[in-house]
Amino acid sequence: MLVTDVRLALPPWIEEAVDRERVYAGDEARVALAIELARRNVAEGTGGPFGAVVFDDGGRVVGAGVNVVLPQHCSAAHAEVMAFAAAQALVRRARLDEDGRRYTLATSAQPCAMCYGACFWAGIDELLIGARSSDVMTLSDFDEGPLPEDWIGELGRRGISVRRDILRDEACAVFRLYAEKDGATY
Amino acid sequence: MLVTDVRLALPPWIEEAVDRERVYAGDEARVALAIELARRNVAEGTGGPFGAVVFDDGGRVVGAGVNVVLPQHCSAAHAEVMAFAAAQALVRRARLDEDGRRYTLATSAQPCAMCYGACFWAGIDELLIGARSSDVMTLSDFDEGPLPEDWIGELGRRGISVRRDILRDEACAVFRLYAEKDGATY
Repeated sequence: MLVTDVRLALPPWIEEAVDRERVYAGDEARVALAIELARRNVAEGTGGPFGAVVFDDGGRVVGAGVNVVLPQHCSAAHAEVMAFAAAQALVRRARLDEDGRRYTLATSAQPCAMCYGACFWAGIDELLIGARSSDVMTLSDFDEGPLPEDWIGELGRRGISVRRDILRDEACAVFRLYAEKDGATY
Repeated sequence: MLVTDVRLALPPWIEEAVDRERVYAGDEARVALAIELARRNVAEGTGGPFGAVVFDDGGRVVGAGVNVVLPQHCSAAHAEVMAFAAAQALVRRARLDEDGRRYTLATSAQPCAMCYGACFWAGIDELLIGARSSDVMTLSDFDEGPLPEDWIGELGRRGISVRRDILRDEACAVFRLYAEKDGATY
């Protein structure tokens, strides 16, 4: 039998880690939440050291994700893809900003080659980034994959603005925690 | 309530369109199956004009996918991502070739920017492609997104060989069918 129904579950703690009533005002508060999800994913042992959150233009959370690649047996289950999928499932639209509002993805670390591509199709208007890919590859064994040379410009030309190095030190601390954690297998 | 459980369903007909007992011998037979899934997805009205199949090194199907972006409200639900996820769910491994075998992705059209990135993490060793991205963008409104300049070389340096233009005319015919179909909304 082929698998024709793919189910990707986020860890149960993610529900309580996110306050859907709260207005996360400002870029720092939004990236801080993504970093906190990454940190908690490491602390709980529920996946890799990455977190991402989709916000609407009122600063409210529409979807949140962490890396669940190994526990869910799915190489695409990166934090950004999970956050997009969760947000899109909630609003029941494949392209978030088709309702005329603006959406933001905040992510604890620069999207890898796959998640970079995913940003073009998700219907976001803004990308907020904590750690750089060079940080990720220095502080961990993760490969980020190849990007177009002018990756920020390519996003800009399709209407997606990019701001990076937001809480970069805090974002890097998650990779140090991950490296220190004995028996880290994710 | 946040969505914490993402479910991505493939169309029911995919089970009967794939013969799991058959040995699909040769590159052409493998890409032909990916193209047939793309064609049927258009004919059935169950998603976009793209199909992809993961084969093991014995030529047997491990996972199959079609584009279900709009019906499943998920911008990441491209054929390649679905095929990888279905294959990985079957073998219960996030990286297919960790069992020491070789895996191939056959796809009806060149992977977009996201699916290109996904190829690096899926654990495949070979990528077989029907239509080119330039065909897709000429024959349809789909944007394929930006790739690194030497996108084939980047795959090769990470152990993934690429062969393209396999049954290219047949692959292009699916996009013509899609364009002709009245009221195509996927």
